[in-house]
Amino acid sequence: MLPTSDDVALAARRLEGFAVKTPVIESPRLNALCGGRVLVKAECLQRTGSFKFRGAWNCISQLDAASAPGGVVAYSSGNHAQGVAAAAAIRGLPALIVMPADTPRIKQDNTRAHGAEVVTYDRATQSREAIAAAHAEARCAVLVPPFEHRDIIAGQGTAGLELAEEARLRGVTLDAVLVCCSGGGLTAGITLAMAAASPATRVHPVEPAGFDDYARSLASGRIEANAKPSGSICDALMSVSPGEMTFAINQHRVGEGLTVTDAEAAEAMRFAFAELKLVLEPGGAVALAAALHRRIGTQGRTIGVIASGGNCDADMFARVLRREI
Amino acid sequence: MLPTSDDVALAARRLEGFAVKTPVIESPRLNALCGGRVLVKAECLQRTGSFKFRGAWNCISQLDAASAPGGVVAYSSGNHAQGVAAAAAIRGLPALIVMPADTPRIKQDNTRAHGAEVVTYDRATQSREAIAAAHAEARCAVLVPPFEHRDIIAGQGTAGLELAEEARLRGVTLDAVLVCCSGGGLTAGITLAMAAASPATRVHPVEPAGFDDYARSLASGRIEANAKPSGSICDALMSVSPGEMTFAINQHRVGEGLTVTDAEAAEAMRFAFAELKLVLEPGGAVALAAALHRRIGTQGRTIGVIASGGNCDADMFARVLRREI
Repeated sequence: MLPTSDDVALAARRLEGFAVKTPVIESPRLNALCGGRVLVKAECLQRTGSFKFRGAWNCISQLDAASAPGGVVAYSSGNHAQGVAAAAAIRGLPALIVMPADTPRIKQDNTRAHGAEVVTYDRATQSREAIAAAHAEARCAVLVPPFEHRDIIAGQGTAGLELAEEARLRGVTLDAVLVCCSGGGLTAGITLAMAAASPATRVHPVEPAGFDDYARSLASGRIEANAKPSGSICDALMSVSPGEMTFAINQHRVGEGLTVTDAEAAEAMRFAFAELKLVLEPGGAVALAAALHRRIGTQGRTIGVIASGGNCDADMFARVLRREI
Repeated sequence: MLPTSDDVALAARRLEGFAVKTPVIESPRLNALCGGRVLVKAECLQRTGSFKFRGAWNCISQLDAASAPGGVVAYSSGNHAQGVAAAAAIRGLPALIVMPADTPRIKQDNTRAHGAEVVTYDRATQSREAIAAAHAEARCAVLVPPFEHRDIIAGQGTAGLELAEEARLRGVTLDAVLVCCSGGGLTAGITLAMAAASPATRVHPVEPAGFDDYARSLASGRIEANAKPSGSICDALMSVSPGEMTFAINQHRVGEGLTVTDAEAAEAMRFAFAELKLVLEPGGAVALAAALHRRIGTQGRTIGVIASGGNCDADMFARVLRREI
């Protein structure tokens, strides 16, 4: 069953005291560059360094421990992994996470630091869903998917509720919200949040160029797939296709899907470093990149930008700062 | 005349709608490392990337433009420069800033970006005070000093009021606050703020090792000077001596002065990058370094840390990330 706007509101209550109400950051220079107002929702400051803790906690906080003696299992490119590991640790549940072998080191290390067991796989040749399902069955554990789940989508939507509330406090209405998009869970959650809290706001998913399965799916009206499983610096945004649930929510409600190049994402990371003093990972910077490069009109408008995560290896960040990327 | 706690409260009202109420960030890992709670006041997210906008705005917002036809003049290692330039720009006043020639590029560029004129000098051989005074007289401008001014000290103190309020909301009392310290304006302002808002809280200035004029002055009971004008990566903390006003406020109220090495400041920058997702400059990271390295007891206590600024050149930050510093 698909989640509703009410589920997002319920999730917000469950998250109270556990998730961070992340700040909304406004930069006079960013506003000037865009000729409007840009409200950056700094989800890199969320617990575990990305928005993913929201959905993970909304899901895992509701689990009946007795029905999951083996705890939880998840597959993830790294941010959902950390969110699930942290949420499971709070509940005292064991967690096993299936991650691509080429996941940034920081994401693997942080996942283990929360006490989770990490199993790696090869993105090109193995199915993470199959590996995770086998582990879940063997351990009598509950599988916590990264986006195809009512509670996950509703949890991610709480970031949208907070952004809409902050816009209201600042006396503005968001014309659009740009959302970093992989499987579409965050986009779907924010779409549900805006439907209730800010119905005039248009949500746009943003993807790396060449990995624009969501944009093409929205354009064609059916679920499309990326040609390659990896090959962008935006490691967090490599889902092959939109989720069926997220697409059902997004298909007729969101605006056009936008794309940015890796170079534009890197430039947005440098902008966040120099102007916002925020650490963003490549996949967490694509929405900001779309605003900076005016993929939609910003003149005279108020645009929300979800800065979705900041889990970037130090070496990658140093290369970006030195313009080697 | 010395500022009082009431002046800090008045400053807070003047700052409303102009300065950012910066978030207080708590990290489960930092808490675990310290065996207590650490509340990081993220002043790197303040307008202009450091707390300095607070004092600058508190001072410049009160200026009678007719009495300063030439606008404002300031001398600064870079963060006060940006604060003054931004505050003057809001008021529509011209600004001239005297900065050391070896100031990080980002600080010079940002100061010019706010429309200010920048004049450089050699830290080793020239007096910034004399140069600034001459310019102020020639231009019929008002000199806005970096710390020896009632309105500047009171303005910086507003960061302390916000931190005390946030601690109250979280149901804790701050046992101590660690403050990055150069001339002592921020330390003095926060000392005044805590006297009113959280009298049980002990304020400790933190300086780079070898540039611990404030710690030595507190120990000896008279104003001491650093042996060298520069030589630490903490470019923002190179004042030669405590200010007379700031020392008069701090001398009998603050706790022991603490010091950290450049290597410890760099490690704190890496911690802020990896765990807090914040960009800190070296001088903005010394208070966090003092907490991480337990320069005071943290076990079972609640410690405030002022992360005072984030204006770091990309090349310096990359070197820190690569452990070249």
